[in-house]
Amino acid sequence: MASQAVVPQSEDFSRWYNDIVYRADLAAQSPVRGCLIIKPYGYELWEAIKGGLDRRFKATGHQNAYFPLFIPESFLKREAEHVEGFSPELAVVTIAGGKQLEEPLVVRPTSETIIMEAFKEWIQSYRDLPLLMNQWANVVRWEMRTRPFLRTTEFLWQEGHTAHATYDEAEAETRQMLDIYADFAVNDAAIPVVTGRKSDREKFAGALHTYTIEAMMGDKKALQSGTSHNLGQNFAKAFDIKYLDTSNELQYCWTTSWGVSTRMVGAVVMAHGDDKGLRLPPKLAPYQVVIVPIFRNEAEQAPVMEVVARMKMELIAAGIRIHIDNRDGLTPGFKYNDWEMRGVPVRMEIGPKDVEKGSVALARRDIPGKEGKQFVPQENIAIRVQDLLVEIQANMLAQATVFRDANIHDVTNYDELREVVLAGGWARGWWAGSGEDEARIKDDLAATIRCFPFDQPGGNGVCLFTGQPANQVAIFARAY
Amino acid sequence: MASQAVVPQSEDFSRWYNDIVYRADLAAQSPVRGCLIIKPYGYELWEAIKGGLDRRFKATGHQNAYFPLFIPESFLKREAEHVEGFSPELAVVTIAGGKQLEEPLVVRPTSETIIMEAFKEWIQSYRDLPLLMNQWANVVRWEMRTRPFLRTTEFLWQEGHTAHATYDEAEAETRQMLDIYADFAVNDAAIPVVTGRKSDREKFAGALHTYTIEAMMGDKKALQSGTSHNLGQNFAKAFDIKYLDTSNELQYCWTTSWGVSTRMVGAVVMAHGDDKGLRLPPKLAPYQVVIVPIFRNEAEQAPVMEVVARMKMELIAAGIRIHIDNRDGLTPGFKYNDWEMRGVPVRMEIGPKDVEKGSVALARRDIPGKEGKQFVPQENIAIRVQDLLVEIQANMLAQATVFRDANIHDVTNYDELREVVLAGGWARGWWAGSGEDEARIKDDLAATIRCFPFDQPGGNGVCLFTGQPANQVAIFARAY
Repeated sequence: MASQAVVPQSEDFSRWYNDIVYRADLAAQSPVRGCLIIKPYGYELWEAIKGGLDRRFKATGHQNAYFPLFIPESFLKREAEHVEGFSPELAVVTIAGGKQLEEPLVVRPTSETIIMEAFKEWIQSYRDLPLLMNQWANVVRWEMRTRPFLRTTEFLWQEGHTAHATYDEAEAETRQMLDIYADFAVNDAAIPVVTGRKSDREKFAGALHTYTIEAMMGDKKALQSGTSHNLGQNFAKAFDIKYLDTSNELQYCWTTSWGVSTRMVGAVVMAHGDDKGLRLPPKLAPYQVVIVPIFRNEAEQAPVMEVVARMKMELIAAGIRIHIDNRDGLTPGFKYNDWEMRGVPVRMEIGPKDVEKGSVALARRDIPGKEGKQFVPQENIAIRVQDLLVEIQANMLAQATVFRDANIHDVTNYDELREVVLAGGWARGWWAGSGEDEARIKDDLAATIRCFPFDQPGGNGVCLFTGQPANQVAIFARAY
Repeated sequence: MASQAVVPQSEDFSRWYNDIVYRADLAAQSPVRGCLIIKPYGYELWEAIKGGLDRRFKATGHQNAYFPLFIPESFLKREAEHVEGFSPELAVVTIAGGKQLEEPLVVRPTSETIIMEAFKEWIQSYRDLPLLMNQWANVVRWEMRTRPFLRTTEFLWQEGHTAHATYDEAEAETRQMLDIYADFAVNDAAIPVVTGRKSDREKFAGALHTYTIEAMMGDKKALQSGTSHNLGQNFAKAFDIKYLDTSNELQYCWTTSWGVSTRMVGAVVMAHGDDKGLRLPPKLAPYQVVIVPIFRNEAEQAPVMEVVARMKMELIAAGIRIHIDNRDGLTPGFKYNDWEMRGVPVRMEIGPKDVEKGSVALARRDIPGKEGKQFVPQENIAIRVQDLLVEIQANMLAQATVFRDANIHDVTNYDELREVVLAGGWARGWWAGSGEDEARIKDDLAATIRCFPFDQPGGNGVCLFTGQPANQVAIFARAY
């Protein structure tokens, strides 16, 4: 067993993050440049994220399908902005079955092009619309600088792709899917994301506009955690996707795409973690409860393990995900630290005194120390724990919301913006600047427009940068 | 709407299969050579297969993880038989991020090598064993001749990889996983597979031995539907995976791997389908019940749809997967044929007479015509349908078992074997031949040893080919 200490967040948030990802066994480095091994504890977290999203997609009429990993190079070139956006990041298969390929195959960086080629075949009339598809898949982008979960050469994600008869329907879909992402982030991941529209400079390559959920990490940096794109008719025109409308006229479709990736694992780590390690929201935690049996000798062991077995049965029967730490040769104190580091929401301690008193100790991960610890009767344990998990889920969202709101500051001019950003906060102010203005600010402060939030003050103001009249506020921040 | 007719199985089983795969909307061809698009109806079938397997893996202590898509070329070369087995089929990335790679990256054809490299890091002592992992992933093998689901360049699968302290434990794991595959095939897919061991000639490249589940398709050909490999210490030695045993001595591990792929979708299609199309076992069917409302005018429509809505609510509440065919402009007869073609186990017809009588009609896909149709009260519909689904599941297994048993024939010499194989059956007989003998039979009859079945007659016999004493029977058949 190595030392249990983790670098404190305040000292070096970046190192804290890397430490925690590997120490908590979420992932391991692989021998392939920029590719991560997602270990079981991290993969179960991803499975919970998948489950929460997939349920919402299906409830809104989307169906899963699977499209090829490989995309003929020529397909990518059909949509001009798209190919420009992705060209520098492509991994290309040139040899297969021992022979040089006539046309190289790109490993998908995203699947718009191959899916649009299929949509072209499948869509003939307005009766075929809307076409609402989703794919769970791996994608590859050859990134120069990678960070576990946040930016890796290969990552896992879902990509939704839909086609509609009108702009309005495509726009409604784009917004609906962003709402679904926000609902998942807030209610399952306990992350109070800000929803809004990306600036033209930051939008997806080939989109009319891009909506985003932006999450505030523990170091106050922003993390773009999910995006939804209204692609207009750009891909429909590039791939010739037309439908016969009710008046029997050929029309181009309107398409959308939207995605959330394993980056969400990084969001959960950085939004909730503290100096002791991970803090996982109960809805996503692989283990919601860890049971630590405590005994000094065999005489104590038997009755303790009897209670452990009974608690286990009752918790499992109630659908609560538990783990019993039976490891030999480790002190209870070591185990407490270990499971705090791994972010398990509730620790249940069962020792000889608990056997005597018919109680167990429950320690909350979201409230440190004695304040978060209580002794409760063994009776009706499942209901007690269930209530506690609900309370922890709500409290984690509340904590993250207080933190977020305390770190978004309204600014009226560039000096104020600079001050807020340099202090590590998010700056919100009226904006009417150009893409070049954004680029200047990025050069100066390494901060970007995260979004024009949907939640606008209303009315008009004066642009913080140009002094021109402005009709919307933007949020600036440094971001991952 | 195109014609509904499908080529009969008896006329051309191969064409029947391809017809059905595309017509039933399981899949579509893609513009990438040998790669399939798995459409929602096919993907939901795969999701049901995944669910059934994943539940069994987790119940036996396996954990899911995810390893990189790319494997450095040098890794594959470390295990001599392994690289020889896979070399001709590899797809290779040579360019990434706009540059020639120093070491080409192979798109994984299977992940033994990259996972063993990780196991080497993770395993130090006997306390780390057994290590029981599984991965759901896409893999790529550059096949010359492809067929939808059965053999595609890219396919989806799970690959389990485990490490153990002893040969016996590895062997027990290898057998356990084959038992799990058989349990899934029999109880979920209603396919009465034959379990057994592969001959040395047919085993996995790098394995000590390979176990297999072999399924009989509707044309009596065999389909290898899942395999489990005892890899001995071959990979542990190639990748230097050692552990300290309880006497503090370094030992090489014993490893296993096992996999089931989207090929299982093809198995379900070919094991159960008939001239009308698919027949899906209720446990795997995306829709277990399709409801077809019948009315001639608006006056009839309202009360019919009221019953439809009530039936829907009750069936969904009972967890039954249903679909309502509300399509305009199609006759009920057309819809019946369509859903028979798509293999939905139960069709529920609701018309004006049913409204009057408080009944619905239930038609079974597994029993054609009037014999499979009954009128039942609307009351307690969920229980009735649930019972019927259980009955259909059991009946499909029974039908497939009768078919299988009628087409496995005991043979005592090569003439008999030839006769059975040429007539399209499976031939079972004593075998003590060599790999060259197997090769000769393959050249002559295009038949191979599918397995040495676990279910052996016992005792000894005379080899059907060499006339030598033999201690086991083999099953020969033509295969996909």
